[in-house]
Amino acid sequence: MKLYTYFRSSAAYRVRIALNLKNIPHELVGVNLLKSEQQGENYTGKNPQGLLPALETEQGVLAQSLAILEWLEETHTDTPLLPNDPWQKAQVRNFCYAIACDIHPIDNLRVLKYLSQELHVDDEQKNTWYRHWVIEGFKKLELMLGDSPFCFGDKPTLADVCLVPQVFNALRFKVDMTPFPKIAAIYAHCNEMAAFSDAAPENQPDAQ
Amino acid sequence: MKLYTYFRSSAAYRVRIALNLKNIPHELVGVNLLKSEQQGENYTGKNPQGLLPALETEQGVLAQSLAILEWLEETHTDTPLLPNDPWQKAQVRNFCYAIACDIHPIDNLRVLKYLSQELHVDDEQKNTWYRHWVIEGFKKLELMLGDSPFCFGDKPTLADVCLVPQVFNALRFKVDMTPFPKIAAIYAHCNEMAAFSDAAPENQPDAQ
Repeated sequence: MKLYTYFRSSAAYRVRIALNLKNIPHELVGVNLLKSEQQGENYTGKNPQGLLPALETEQGVLAQSLAILEWLEETHTDTPLLPNDPWQKAQVRNFCYAIACDIHPIDNLRVLKYLSQELHVDDEQKNTWYRHWVIEGFKKLELMLGDSPFCFGDKPTLADVCLVPQVFNALRFKVDMTPFPKIAAIYAHCNEMAAFSDAAPENQPDAQ
Repeated sequence: MKLYTYFRSSAAYRVRIALNLKNIPHELVGVNLLKSEQQGENYTGKNPQGLLPALETEQGVLAQSLAILEWLEETHTDTPLLPNDPWQKAQVRNFCYAIACDIHPIDNLRVLKYLSQELHVDDEQKNTWYRHWVIEGFKKLELMLGDSPFCFGDKPTLADVCLVPQVFNALRFKVDMTPFPKIAAIYAHCNEMAAFSDAAPENQPDAQ
């Protein structure tokens, strides 16, 4: 498989972690978001949505990180990242969507660009915007966590796969993690595993 | 089951459609977003995330529309809304997330409020923002559709469940649908089914 990725894309980062956790052999292909390579024909020929990531498989190219994660979960069952029980599974997905729908999209690069270029928002206001949505989201996530080493129990799930890239971004934008001790502890614990640390932006071949 | 809903919440609208399609008996409980009732203790005691919708089940309260849709799919299998084949299922989810992650969150009421209240964006700029993310998203969705009566084939799937509320919102914000004939045709076709039209905002008990 080939994963189209950008080192700082947090949606691509999710898929990198899952591929590592599941020990799926894959090749990483860099697509530079800052150079808008995701809108070039080379890439939109693969993924007409023009967003990262995309996974090239034997059956075709699949886009949307969450769709990729669910597909990997169904087709590579050796290291499950979702519980079997439907209700427990729903709790994990609830946590994932609280990140992937309620935090990440509002702070995405294309949204930040619109704020600067179309609404002439200055850098300080833009960073406040970024932190606002992270903090609002993290307050809710913190309430959803117990005292287990990972988000749900003693093994990583898709919740951790979605959480770690979001915390990485939060730290990059200097969000104070003091009010979120459970999230911070899980982030540290996950990063002790090579599957997570190997997927981190600074360890990518296209890191700059 | 009890669904906490607001007539204009497009995430709640998705769940209303799915409950109807699956013929699941349920009660609708209105939570007024304009009065910020979703942040009141009455509601956050049920759903600490303070967002709509939430589904009260025998096992507890579940939040996040997509987590609810997936849980309903797993536990109420009579009218499936996802294909069986993992690759086909991934295509449907890809389409759903292109709406639920890439369009809807950026145009959510709380984001529009932030634009007005914190960034002093005027109404015209706010409406342009709204339409921008819908149009960018619809361009991609239109490319993903074929000529079938529903998004994927001749029966509704979760793709239609996510699409219809987004089109409803687009029309409310006067997005010109001329460039999106496939989306417009599917929207019209879906609304011929009572499961969809009964779930529409104007047909809700809390409609104003």
